[in-house]
This record gives sequence, structure tokens and C-alpha cells, in this order.
Amino acid sequence: MTRAALDVALAYHHAWAGGDLDAALRYIADDVVCEAPPGVLEGIDAYRAFLEPYVSQLVSASLIAAFGDDETALVMYDSVTQLVARAPGAECVRVADGRIVRSWFVFDRAPFMAARAAMVGSRDAQGSAP
Amino acid sequence: MTRAALDVALAYHHAWAGGDLDAALRYIADDVVCEAPPGVLEGIDAYRAFLEPYVSQLVSASLIAAFGDDETALVMYDSVTQLVARAPGAECVRVADGRIVRSWFVFDRAPFMAARAAMVGSRDAQGSAP
Repeated sequence: MTRAALDVALAYHHAWAGGDLDAALRYIADDVVCEAPPGVLEGIDAYRAFLEPYVSQLVSASLIAAFGDDETALVMYDSVTQLVARAPGAECVRVADGRIVRSWFVFDRAPFMAARAAMVGSRDAQGSAP
Repeated sequence: MTRAALDVALAYHHAWAGGDLDAALRYIADDVVCEAPPGVLEGIDAYRAFLEPYVSQLVSASLIAAFGDDETALVMYDSVTQLVARAPGAECVRVADGRIVRSWFVFDRAPFMAARAAMVGSRDAQGSAP
């Protein structure tokens, strides 16, 4: 059994986990379709806009498990971000010609929303401008 | 390669996806430790209390992908619930002696929190008791 999709999923994962968003996006097809918590992302520009805020404040990420075959891979990881201390995620990807063409992205938005709300509250309490 | 953990993960999945929480919990070890969005769940009673509200309002669930080997399995699914129309989740499980002893559970709490807040708001607007 070959594992071409798993190889791509892991290369993509290790790129963004190392903070290199551009390298990660080289594994994403231009016309990628991704079901993510905020909704369906279509195209690599939408995908970049979705991933950029997360990767820019990433402290570290570590794999929990990764499996796959020639067409599909499934990866789960934990991550530490500046905003949220524990931010696990899971991604299922379909790969064609070495790039991710279809993706399902699962993570909990609740701690990110709470952290952002707390930051706004903190700013308001200090009376400073955003 | 045998896939004992995947077999257990799928049997557990199909049990709760069919609405049978008791059957699903037969695949969970008494001293399971599960990292879930609300925090770490310890023991099968905590696991049941976590899963019960979700399964009780489940409409349908369908697998997106499932992989595993003899010790570890990783499953992603989409689900429809009475509260939230689109509730995907992912679970990584470690299996020993036919039961899940360790688990990582990832899903987005945001739409559930929003739906509950809307219900409370709706009740308030109607002036009815909870």
C-alpha cells in the first residue's frame, strides 16, 4: 500500500507547524475546497486567509496521530498558540497530483472566541484604543 | 497489519451513530481518559455525561474517514443534530483489550453555544419559563 496522500498531509503539516505558511500552501491546490468551522472555504486565497492568523500566533504543534493511503489522509494534532494554550485540531485531506484538493478541518473555536472577547474586554477596561 | 483498534473505533462509532449510547459505552474502558473540548474527562461516568446530550439529540452521522492499526485509530465524521445542522467531529482512540482507554475528541463547540444562547434568547423574548 502506498501512502502518497499521507506523505503530502505530513509535509503540509510539518511546514505550517514550523511556522512556514508559504511552504505549507505549496501543498494546497489552487481550487481547494475546505469545510472548516466558519464555513466552506473555496480556493487557496480563502484557505490562506483562514490559516494565516492561526499560524502567525502558533507557538508549537505536535502530532497525536496520522494515517492515510494513496488518496486520503487523516491527521490529528495538538497545538499551543499565543491566544489559546491548548488548541487541538484534525484535518482530513484528499490529495491529487501531490496537492490537497479537498479538506475537512475540525477544531474548537470556543477558546479562540473567549480569548478574543477577553482581550477586547481588557482593552475596554483600560480605556485604550484598539 | 491487523487493525484491532480500528475495528473497536468503528464498532463504537456505529453504535452511537445509531443512537445506542449503552452499546457505544461497552467499548469504553472504565478508567478511560479523554481530552475533550471542555477539558479532560476521567472515567466512563464522565464520558457518558459528556456524550449523552449529543447522542440524545443526534439526527444522523456519517463517516468522512477512518484509519487505524492495532493500537490506535483515527476517525472523522459529520453529524446532524437537532441543535446544530452541521456538527463534524474527530476522535483519536487508543485501544487495549478491546476497549478505548485513551481518547482525544475534537469538535467545534461554537455552534452549540450559539444555538443554546439563541434558545435562551427566544425563551426570554417569549417570556416563558425555561
